[in-house]
Amino acid sequence: MQIGIVGLGLMGGSLGFDFRALGYPVIGVSRHPETWQRALERGAIDQGSTVLEVLSSSNVVFLCPPLSQIVPLAHQIIPHLQPEAILTDIGSVKGAIVPDLEAIWPHYVGGHPMAGTAETGIEAAQKHLFQDRPYVLTPTQQTHPTDVETLATLIKGLKSRLYMATPEAHDRAVAWISHLPVMVSSALILACAQEGDRDIYHLAQQLASSGFRDTSRVGGGNPELGQMMAQFNQAALLGCLQTYRHCLDDLIAQVEGGAWDDLGDRLSIAQSERHHFL
Amino acid sequence: MQIGIVGLGLMGGSLGFDFRALGYPVIGVSRHPETWQRALERGAIDQGSTVLEVLSSSNVVFLCPPLSQIVPLAHQIIPHLQPEAILTDIGSVKGAIVPDLEAIWPHYVGGHPMAGTAETGIEAAQKHLFQDRPYVLTPTQQTHPTDVETLATLIKGLKSRLYMATPEAHDRAVAWISHLPVMVSSALILACAQEGDRDIYHLAQQLASSGFRDTSRVGGGNPELGQMMAQFNQAALLGCLQTYRHCLDDLIAQVEGGAWDDLGDRLSIAQSERHHFL
Repeated sequence: MQIGIVGLGLMGGSLGFDFRALGYPVIGVSRHPETWQRALERGAIDQGSTVLEVLSSSNVVFLCPPLSQIVPLAHQIIPHLQPEAILTDIGSVKGAIVPDLEAIWPHYVGGHPMAGTAETGIEAAQKHLFQDRPYVLTPTQQTHPTDVETLATLIKGLKSRLYMATPEAHDRAVAWISHLPVMVSSALILACAQEGDRDIYHLAQQLASSGFRDTSRVGGGNPELGQMMAQFNQAALLGCLQTYRHCLDDLIAQVEGGAWDDLGDRLSIAQSERHHFL
Repeated sequence: MQIGIVGLGLMGGSLGFDFRALGYPVIGVSRHPETWQRALERGAIDQGSTVLEVLSSSNVVFLCPPLSQIVPLAHQIIPHLQPEAILTDIGSVKGAIVPDLEAIWPHYVGGHPMAGTAETGIEAAQKHLFQDRPYVLTPTQQTHPTDVETLATLIKGLKSRLYMATPEAHDRAVAWISHLPVMVSSALILACAQEGDRDIYHLAQQLASSGFRDTSRVGGGNPELGQMMAQFNQAALLGCLQTYRHCLDDLIAQVEGGAWDDLGDRLSIAQSERHHFL
């Protein structure tokens, strides 16, 4: 079984390393010749190209460009695929992608490997990136069960933790644990920046420590990524934000009203609830 | 110069280690005999007791009980102090403590060493806990400058980064970078727990990773501590919460209205602003 990977960044390159290690021949495609050449040098692919025609011999094709490029790229790739080739993508949002792609390719299965590092690009690609990390597949009623089985076998080879969910359930789940934290955390930084007394503002900067560092980390991350997640997962994120706002308002009311026991109860629930997530 | 430490937990015990290493004799007081005995065994104090009378020979006394106990304990200690003895505390909020203590003791100086670990108690006490960490003193117009100098010398011996601020400026600064993050982070956990679809709720738990872990860490911490910080720093925290809510509302409006460029701009500001704090 030959594997095609389109987009040789952190994710595409890392998939290439692992699939080659599992014995599958890997064809890599990048718009930039220096990228596939570097992927070849690093051992992430067996063969590289800038043209999509090389995918005509692939049995499974992984689409690994930035989120906004997945659908346009799929349209360009499809004319070159074998009729039975399985097409999948690694986009972090599925509801905005899956319906479009299954409308144009019968052997499409949505996927989301949840791994990453702070670095991007082919130089950041590494072996075992997906090991012990979640990998969600989002089959629908239109998906061929045999295509899901084929992908599941590949994903188990990566030693990922495989989950199945509808695109909608996936998007809501990642909105809670990934996209909402970005907004919550950004708002924290933006609020601190509003301090009008320059002495207090500078003192706060001097005193900021691990608590601020951790709570603000994802909010101070790549703004393009945060914007794209919000754009592609708008409805789910908005629902989460509204629920969050209610929870925040409850806490504010307790602080304002001096309802210290109630506040303590809420913080206790937060403490125990967190253990269910981690 | 003899140093007295009342309350031999993580903070008091760690101060004892460092002051002894600097050559100062250290008297430790704990309500529980096993605590001062353990502090003595571990080498955090030179002499221990359960009674406050032993502080009559101390030149500088550090009050290191939980926040809510600082003022009541100061009232009990004062009858036993030398007339020139300097009294200081390590409470993480100052506006609710400084006026009370300077009303009853002329040689009081508020302080806040900002160090800690996830552990508490004398077993967690360690050498060099305060090294490279902020230590804020909060003198007022009533404070004797020579008392501040004496404490500043001791604090420099701990190799802490010493800052001076009014109690109000201190409280506002720590509200931004320490108390607000707790509330923001708790609300995140509480919001995620509101997911009504059990499948999505469980999937979110399975998918939660470093982003959720970091953003939720301080919100899932000790609820009594969070409650006490809110109670003792109510006004400053409330101001920060209201500013936070406005910032959040702006982000929600941008997500709701699909103002992606504006959202991207806000996230870019958050990214660059964070560097000023860390």
